[in-house]
Amino acid sequence: MSKLTDVPKRILIGRALRSDRLGETLLSKRIALPVFASDPLSSVAYAPGEVLLVLSIAGVSAYHFSPWIALAVVVLMFTVVASYRQNVHAYPSGGGDYEVATTNLGPKAGLTVASALLVDYVLTVAVSISSGIENLGSAIPFVVEHKVACAVAVIVLLTLMNLRGVKESGKLFAIPTYVFVTGVFIMIAWGAFRGLVLGDAMRAPTSQYTIKAEHQGLAGFALVFLLLRAFSSGCAALTGVEAISNGVPAFRKPKSKNAATTLAAMGLLAVTMFCGIIVLALVTKVRMAENPATDLLKNGVGVGVGYVQNPVITQVAEAVFGKGSFFFVVLAAATALVLFLAANTAYNGFPVLGSILAQDRYLPRQLHTRGDRLAFSNGIVLLAGTAMLLVVLYGADSTRLIQLYIVGVFVSFTLSQTGMVRHWNRLLATETDQAKRRHMVRSRAINTFGAFFTGLVLVVVLLTKFTHGAWVALLGMVIFYGVMTAIRRHYDGVAAEIAAPEGPSDDSVRPSRVHSVLLISKIHRPTLRALAYAKLMRSDTLEALTVNVDPAETKALRAEWERRGIDVPLKVLDSPYREVTRPVIEYVKSLRRESPRDAVSVIIPEYVVGHWYEHLLHNQSALRLKGRLLFTPGVMVTSVPYQLQSSEAARKRARRRQEWNAPGSVRRGPAHVGRPKESSGSASGSGGAPGAQGPDDKH
Amino acid sequence: MSKLTDVPKRILIGRALRSDRLGETLLSKRIALPVFASDPLSSVAYAPGEVLLVLSIAGVSAYHFSPWIALAVVVLMFTVVASYRQNVHAYPSGGGDYEVATTNLGPKAGLTVASALLVDYVLTVAVSISSGIENLGSAIPFVVEHKVACAVAVIVLLTLMNLRGVKESGKLFAIPTYVFVTGVFIMIAWGAFRGLVLGDAMRAPTSQYTIKAEHQGLAGFALVFLLLRAFSSGCAALTGVEAISNGVPAFRKPKSKNAATTLAAMGLLAVTMFCGIIVLALVTKVRMAENPATDLLKNGVGVGVGYVQNPVITQVAEAVFGKGSFFFVVLAAATALVLFLAANTAYNGFPVLGSILAQDRYLPRQLHTRGDRLAFSNGIVLLAGTAMLLVVLYGADSTRLIQLYIVGVFVSFTLSQTGMVRHWNRLLATETDQAKRRHMVRSRAINTFGAFFTGLVLVVVLLTKFTHGAWVALLGMVIFYGVMTAIRRHYDGVAAEIAAPEGPSDDSVRPSRVHSVLLISKIHRPTLRALAYAKLMRSDTLEALTVNVDPAETKALRAEWERRGIDVPLKVLDSPYREVTRPVIEYVKSLRRESPRDAVSVIIPEYVVGHWYEHLLHNQSALRLKGRLLFTPGVMVTSVPYQLQSSEAARKRARRRQEWNAPGSVRRGPAHVGRPKESSGSASGSGGAPGAQGPDDKH
Repeated sequence: MSKLTDVPKRILIGRALRSDRLGETLLSKRIALPVFASDPLSSVAYAPGEVLLVLSIAGVSAYHFSPWIALAVVVLMFTVVASYRQNVHAYPSGGGDYEVATTNLGPKAGLTVASALLVDYVLTVAVSISSGIENLGSAIPFVVEHKVACAVAVIVLLTLMNLRGVKESGKLFAIPTYVFVTGVFIMIAWGAFRGLVLGDAMRAPTSQYTIKAEHQGLAGFALVFLLLRAFSSGCAALTGVEAISNGVPAFRKPKSKNAATTLAAMGLLAVTMFCGIIVLALVTKVRMAENPATDLLKNGVGVGVGYVQNPVITQVAEAVFGKGSFFFVVLAAATALVLFLAANTAYNGFPVLGSILAQDRYLPRQLHTRGDRLAFSNGIVLLAGTAMLLVVLYGADSTRLIQLYIVGVFVSFTLSQTGMVRHWNRLLATETDQAKRRHMVRSRAINTFGAFFTGLVLVVVLLTKFTHGAWVALLGMVIFYGVMTAIRRHYDGVAAEIAAPEGPSDDSVRPSRVHSVLLISKIHRPTLRALAYAKLMRSDTLEALTVNVDPAETKALRAEWERRGIDVPLKVLDSPYREVTRPVIEYVKSLRRESPRDAVSVIIPEYVVGHWYEHLLHNQSALRLKGRLLFTPGVMVTSVPYQLQSSEAARKRARRRQEWNAPGSVRRGPAHVGRPKESSGSASGSGGAPGAQGPDDKH
Repeated sequence: MSKLTDVPKRILIGRALRSDRLGETLLSKRIALPVFASDPLSSVAYAPGEVLLVLSIAGVSAYHFSPWIALAVVVLMFTVVASYRQNVHAYPSGGGDYEVATTNLGPKAGLTVASALLVDYVLTVAVSISSGIENLGSAIPFVVEHKVACAVAVIVLLTLMNLRGVKESGKLFAIPTYVFVTGVFIMIAWGAFRGLVLGDAMRAPTSQYTIKAEHQGLAGFALVFLLLRAFSSGCAALTGVEAISNGVPAFRKPKSKNAATTLAAMGLLAVTMFCGIIVLALVTKVRMAENPATDLLKNGVGVGVGYVQNPVITQVAEAVFGKGSFFFVVLAAATALVLFLAANTAYNGFPVLGSILAQDRYLPRQLHTRGDRLAFSNGIVLLAGTAMLLVVLYGADSTRLIQLYIVGVFVSFTLSQTGMVRHWNRLLATETDQAKRRHMVRSRAINTFGAFFTGLVLVVVLLTKFTHGAWVALLGMVIFYGVMTAIRRHYDGVAAEIAAPEGPSDDSVRPSRVHSVLLISKIHRPTLRALAYAKLMRSDTLEALTVNVDPAETKALRAEWERRGIDVPLKVLDSPYREVTRPVIEYVKSLRRESPRDAVSVIIPEYVVGHWYEHLLHNQSALRLKGRLLFTPGVMVTSVPYQLQSSEAARKRARRRQEWNAPGSVRRGPAHVGRPKESSGSASGSGGAPGAQGPDDKH
């Protein structure tokens, strides 16, 4: 069975790779770009619309500010790309923002970044899926009519895929991403050709509508505030930019150079698409309103609650290619697909960051082993559950969800860039080579500007978005931060409590003799096996123990004990209250009282069965007794299992479970093979791109 | 803490009694009557109404059949009481119907009775609560307007009370039961006085209504069928009659005689109340219809959906005492309270029957120990959950629920009486004393008639009620029967598999040497303690084992191992896939392959913490490893616990849990102290009355 069911998995995703063979899976730039950039590239599907939406508050006349806002976003994009190119060179191990912040600014800054990133992963899923549904909906009306249900269905689908261990492959990412990018460029080019050469008057479906300004003739501070808000919304285009910096080890050599080139290419593509869509939107007279029902007017009347406001990108595509044309449908499908892939990257990034945080003892230890299915599943379910909650609460409305999104990104941008400044300061303090110093000073200047600019944007985002939803993201960060601090405090407390004292011997932990007590209820094979094993252990004393719950049964047991001539004394405990656990605990305690320096070994025969419902039928009192005994000092508890025939099924199931691999575990590589400390920050990106790192990255 | 919180419990319910002191809690007849008879006595609150309801189908003229139906119920009641008086004498150990059927008719009949009783317990709760709510509702309209919610609330309340371990006391049962009985008798007497002496024309609130017959002028077979259906409904008065026969050991001496007297008194009271209410209903012209909305006419028009049909007992009380008068309110409250107490008896009876079935291996072994809180809680929650489901599905409508009720009762009546006939036949085969023989022949005659009559009623009930809901009860019985048979088959299979072979030594279970393997991840106090204990065990070989997940950590561990000069070899397992469980399992298997006749002892250091959330942070990989190791043959697994400071909290909690007592556990006594086989049927009554039985019952 196990072999047969493995075949399709082997065909689809190949055999799991050993750590030392990971080198074979390194990525070329062509493949790395779609793998790491699906999140930032896909964000041009919603960012331009958000800008127009906010500007519409001051009426359609405010749309003429949009090129200036696009320019600001472009400058910010180049700043961030330039900054992260420094990260890529300085941390070729794939140092994520978490590692950069922790190393250079201390654990609290690191934990802040981690909290921001965890919130961001959740929002990446919520925003990308919602936006994908909206884009799909512009081609298939059914989808947008059942927006929330469809979004939840896609999340469930992605969750199941990831839980089952479907691995993303480079090609899976490459095709839709390149189709999407090519589609947008064709649209821009064809639009420019039609407009400039043919002189066509392309018109978006909303071009005939007018917008009722909520605040007519805004000026002064109010206008500046509105422009800043529009700019904040446009910054959604920057989410996930840092993902490449986490994935440096996955590149072919020269790793850092290739990664930096890919980063620049990604920035250029994103910026061109962003600006192209904004310009086309202005030319085709796209009209977007924050509250379309009342503020978007058709012949002077609000379009009403039933109106569906399609994304800018599909409105532009409709104007350029024509509604329902081949290119229009392909672009809508590719856009939705790229957005779903962007969401999928969060499914890979969340557990990776979790394993790094677990390694630093901010999360339960069991998350540490990344390949572990159980730990991985918990992370996936937590991510999907939270994202689904947000999608339902916000009605799968990407515009409302984006208000929450940008805070976390800029928290980690700012802290990471500040950390990089410290990094260069530290290196400059010891570096003497003038050429290298010049290089470092230049890098430091870039990172300083990056830290300043992203910090400024963070303040702007907080000021303009706080009441619009950013407080939810902040609250999420505070909760993550608080929980992780508490977990770390607990682990530290335990570590201090159990720290081994110096010196080879310690009287308080070394007993002198051991009494063995074998628990018996009946004489059968499990009991006889436990008896044989107990004898083998040659403890100082050995006795069999039974609790007299039913005098007749006890009498029969004693008779058979004698008849079989078993050379171990049988002790019977009376149980006036018909209990089993308490008399045993009391007896063990009395043994300890008599000779406090001795240890007591309690041996319990156990049946092993194959199904959970069989488990309900056995061992319950043994389990409870074991639980209680663990709280009794000076005791060790030995289970002697007896495998029933049905246990074979469970063994096979366990083996199948163990052969399962976490999605992305092959390319991602081990979390801490090679340089354990340096690599601890691998692949913790807000964009949630799968980081990759192998042992061949030791220099 | 533990001491302080115990004080109120001690005051309220007294200290838990030891088995050998149970004699002190025996019941006088005055207290035994309300304790065991709250179910049958309370059923006169709904049974008379059901008779009129069915008759109304043939129009109000059919009401004149009701005295004849009452007469049939009286004859049946006397038959059943007389039959169970034989049970009481023959099985003074409190042989429930389950034991009688198992002993005399074989395990299949016994299991059928048990299934019927389990279904009956559920229905006792559902019917009694629903009827109680309806009675309460006739005094407090709010209650009946929110019928389902109120019924569910009462079930939740009873469940919480029972889960917390509130014990019923004799007085708690006595007061409302006697108030109820006295109230009904005063009503009958005062009604007779007003009608016969004062010549008042008492009129029920529905006396002005007319009934639209669904089938006018029924005759022949159809009429007979309708009368049989009305009779079946009236049989609801018999539910719980057998409860006293389960409780014989709880009576003062002479037990059997006192129990028989109480049984007779109960039958007489029930019959008198039943007939009195029927007669008063006829005199005061109570009008009940199966579908009051359409068939109950006020001035020729249906009363409509909003109409609430009050129970017969409250309509009669209104006619006799006057609406809202003191006696009316007291009687309504007492009726509701007695019905809730009747439901409560099922909460006690269900786990008792469960423990007996567990003893016979039809249910999981952990139910065996009745005083156990966890097992008890599972039973309570199952009972309450099923009852709640029925209440919601049937809209807390006692009339619809009663259709399901009567099947189970008569299944167990019939099988129990048939069993008694066999019992007398067996005794008669060997008995020679002529006086005793005469007595036995007389008893056999009574039981034969009882078996015949109840069997006939069972057929009638099945024929007349099957499509009205009896199939649901039958389905429930089939499910219980199937599950219990499967459990028993599983236990039998396991018992055969693990049966000890004869002869003192058996090569297949006796290994020759033992390798001990101590699992290590770091050196700290728990590890050092486990190391000290492992050395004490003096196994043939001892080595420490670690899995190399992180080379740097492994290196540090090895260095410290050497620095401390620990004289146990440290073995390092490589783990190319960063796993922990698999390499250990593989290594243990390889040890077994090398020397198949040896055993492997795996020693695992464990932390013990106090809270469940702390538990999530520790031991997860140890737990999983232990789980896997149990499936590996030839292995024993030893936990060496290290109690962290926080574990103190958990220990206290566990102790408190252990001091908890199941409701009724004191009076009920041990399930199998004394005569283990004879007493195994104690207290399995459909009425769910708490059986009681002490060791002083050995004859």
